[in-house]
Amino acid sequence: MKALRVEKRGLALRNVEIPERGQEALVRVLLSGICNTDLEIARGYAGFKGTIGHEFVGLVEDSADARLIGQRVVGEINAGCGECDLCQAGDPRHCPRRTVLGIVGRDGAHAEFLRLPLENLSAVPDRIVDEHAVFTEPLAAACGIMERTSITKEQRVAVIGDGKLGLLCAQVIALTGAPVFLVGKHQEKLRIAERRGIETATVKKAAKIKKAFDVVVEASGSGSGFQMGIDLLRPRGVLVLKSTFHGTTEMNAASIVVDEISIVGSRCGRYAPALDLLSKRAIDIDSLISEEYPLRDGIHAMERASRKGVLKVLLRP
Amino acid sequence: MKALRVEKRGLALRNVEIPERGQEALVRVLLSGICNTDLEIARGYAGFKGTIGHEFVGLVEDSADARLIGQRVVGEINAGCGECDLCQAGDPRHCPRRTVLGIVGRDGAHAEFLRLPLENLSAVPDRIVDEHAVFTEPLAAACGIMERTSITKEQRVAVIGDGKLGLLCAQVIALTGAPVFLVGKHQEKLRIAERRGIETATVKKAAKIKKAFDVVVEASGSGSGFQMGIDLLRPRGVLVLKSTFHGTTEMNAASIVVDEISIVGSRCGRYAPALDLLSKRAIDIDSLISEEYPLRDGIHAMERASRKGVLKVLLRP
Repeated sequence: MKALRVEKRGLALRNVEIPERGQEALVRVLLSGICNTDLEIARGYAGFKGTIGHEFVGLVEDSADARLIGQRVVGEINAGCGECDLCQAGDPRHCPRRTVLGIVGRDGAHAEFLRLPLENLSAVPDRIVDEHAVFTEPLAAACGIMERTSITKEQRVAVIGDGKLGLLCAQVIALTGAPVFLVGKHQEKLRIAERRGIETATVKKAAKIKKAFDVVVEASGSGSGFQMGIDLLRPRGVLVLKSTFHGTTEMNAASIVVDEISIVGSRCGRYAPALDLLSKRAIDIDSLISEEYPLRDGIHAMERASRKGVLKVLLRP
Repeated sequence: MKALRVEKRGLALRNVEIPERGQEALVRVLLSGICNTDLEIARGYAGFKGTIGHEFVGLVEDSADARLIGQRVVGEINAGCGECDLCQAGDPRHCPRRTVLGIVGRDGAHAEFLRLPLENLSAVPDRIVDEHAVFTEPLAAACGIMERTSITKEQRVAVIGDGKLGLLCAQVIALTGAPVFLVGKHQEKLRIAERRGIETATVKKAAKIKKAFDVVVEASGSGSGFQMGIDLLRPRGVLVLKSTFHGTTEMNAASIVVDEISIVGSRCGRYAPALDLLSKRAIDIDSLISEEYPLRDGIHAMERASRKGVLKVLLRP
């Protein structure tokens, strides 16, 4: 089968063996989505070598549990050891021995087939089309903000970054009733949020605002976004870090102590709330899809996904 | 009156006018304590010029409310505008127009007299001696940790830094019943905590421990302490930043996102819990007092307070 892999020498499209399912499920990928994390991994982040990709929708091709065969599914990307306290409590997301689809020790979704443990799979309701279902993982990540800090409709919330993740975060938070303020660099991306009634501002305009927000979500993955987040927060405000990015950021510890700021990391979310939102068509997904390519053009698709102004790029095996 | 001041050219002991009380109270200082923040201010932190010092116990010398005259008091250091929402809710600690005793726009406590608003003063119970009462402010700051994160006896807590603040934090947290692990560089300081049944370790030993604690309190005020704090935390753990210090720290944002760490700034605490602990003699204060000097030797006292191995230095006007 074809697979888009990060190897020692860089990105390559390879013909590899279809994985053996073992005790897991073998999934035929229908669509996969390119995430910024894929681009970071191709640049060396996390040291991963293998098939990349962790956003997908697919059909169960084979499974130890025959009832799953033929089901359309999405999959939780963290595969736990099954034995530690966290796994036993039903949450493998921080299992210290976990593998992570296309990120840590497990081949990923930019391929014709992938394998995942049965318990990682969620059936996709019929009314969600493939092009929306493939957004389950990043939408769950956006919903995961609410696992890490409470957001009420009385709070003023800013989201920094008008990329795919920022646009999902802004839309998810707006559904709580809280007034959301999206900061970005691209007028055409900001307009996607404006069409959902979300107030927006350019980075230049937002840089003049100080200490005005209760919660800021940093989804730009840049050091300058981090500093703007701190500046936008009122005392005792909460900065949610949503983007993984390579390298270090300068942090002024004194300002965090004096203003008693909280900085909260947020990574993966639960799938059920995301599937629910997709089922209700509560999120504008269509505007977030920029381009689609056959998997065989995966290297070109990755290059396109790294371009400014391009939102989600999908791959079809 | 004598006052220890930070001026353009540095630290100086000056003779200045006794302040007019205005609508506030005039307090005759009985004892003041030198805090690391005083040392940072003398180095240029916060840009403050004037009389430094914010830890004190004193007697009300004059007041618009005559009933206060003669009372022994300690004082909340943040003086709010009295009008904003925060002040109206009874918490001036984050009032944007606040002055702060000896730190922002208000002469401080290393002087024969100081002034503070009446509502900032708390009467000191008779059974608390002056040498303990002068610790109310830093002890309140240690208690303030519990305003910023919940600590239960099921949680494993580490405190980094065996200075005055670290030793207060470790003792306060130990009273919750949570097992506390104090990390420091000085055997003789660590022994103060050990005598209270607190487990301790040197920095070298602690550097081998990874992802073991639910909460870490950073009270060393150093970039290396910050990084150790991150390393000691389990996924979804909480790092409380307790020390204000000058300059910036390198932060690896990816590790905070991947492990979903929270970083929580903590500055001033409420006085009532601190006075209650002092009244019950629940904290070993005596071991934290290194030296006492007359105010006229304030410059020498500041130099002594900056030495390694020296804990609290007190000034007596």
